[in-house]
Amino acid sequence: MTAETPRYFDDFEVGQRFKSRGATLSEAQILDFAWQYDPQPFHLDKEAAAHWGYDGLIASGFQTLLVGFRLFFQENIWTAASLGSPGMDEVRWLLPVRPGDTIHTEAEVMEARASRSKPDRGILKMRYEIYNQRGEMVMSFIANKIFRRNRLEPEETAEN
Amino acid sequence: MTAETPRYFDDFEVGQRFKSRGATLSEAQILDFAWQYDPQPFHLDKEAAAHWGYDGLIASGFQTLLVGFRLFFQENIWTAASLGSPGMDEVRWLLPVRPGDTIHTEAEVMEARASRSKPDRGILKMRYEIYNQRGEMVMSFIANKIFRRNRLEPEETAEN
Repeated sequence: MTAETPRYFDDFEVGQRFKSRGATLSEAQILDFAWQYDPQPFHLDKEAAAHWGYDGLIASGFQTLLVGFRLFFQENIWTAASLGSPGMDEVRWLLPVRPGDTIHTEAEVMEARASRSKPDRGILKMRYEIYNQRGEMVMSFIANKIFRRNRLEPEETAEN
Repeated sequence: MTAETPRYFDDFEVGQRFKSRGATLSEAQILDFAWQYDPQPFHLDKEAAAHWGYDGLIASGFQTLLVGFRLFFQENIWTAASLGSPGMDEVRWLLPVRPGDTIHTEAEVMEARASRSKPDRGILKMRYEIYNQRGEMVMSFIANKIFRRNRLEPEETAEN
């Protein structure tokens, strides 16, 4: 399957793994994001961060989540098929992300379940892991996503 | 307790509820956020959103999460005490948020657990609910947060 072939629900298999390219988070990006969405002292104030045991400024966990998500999105793995997400579970912030760190995202398909009520779609459960440049996992989460199907199974239609 | 009194771990009780003020999400804000973090068609393209069954542009669920979090932060309920968060669970996007919607956040303390290994802190589990202007719940999540304690229990020190 080439990069140009859109993937739909039926093109995914449990166990498949994907990996994104990386992005570096600068101190300015960390500060800007914190001002807008998460102005806790350890995201905004180097001195406070050191004082509170964080050994310097750390990125908001939400920024790690969003940048990691965005990097994965850019790989165009499910862009054509996505109908949105009902939610996430087990969102875990494991290690600090610091100015100058470079993160990338890897994901594995955990479950694939065709919808019984709506034969044009299915739900994929994927586990996402975000790593820094040292190969340390800084974050993980499990996301459910609704995907369009590229074909209908006759038995799926009959089950409506 | 006045708004100026900092709250620490021991000032919270299971069952306490809090409510933030609101914020309106404009179409421009929704589009800007989507370009930066979640450029899926239904967040960026009114025509695609209508075509894919969303009846028009909808905000990224991540934007709802971040704005809801920020609104709650501004109430200064746990700003003094927060040492960060190990994670979230049961993040659920329940209803679309549309341009012109106004959201606010409510939260309830579900559990409070003092740390055995570090007597200067405890973990609070809080359930957050984000509502729109019609009183409909658009999102919910459970967040664990590490809080500083404003006093030490002698038995907590002995357990180290």
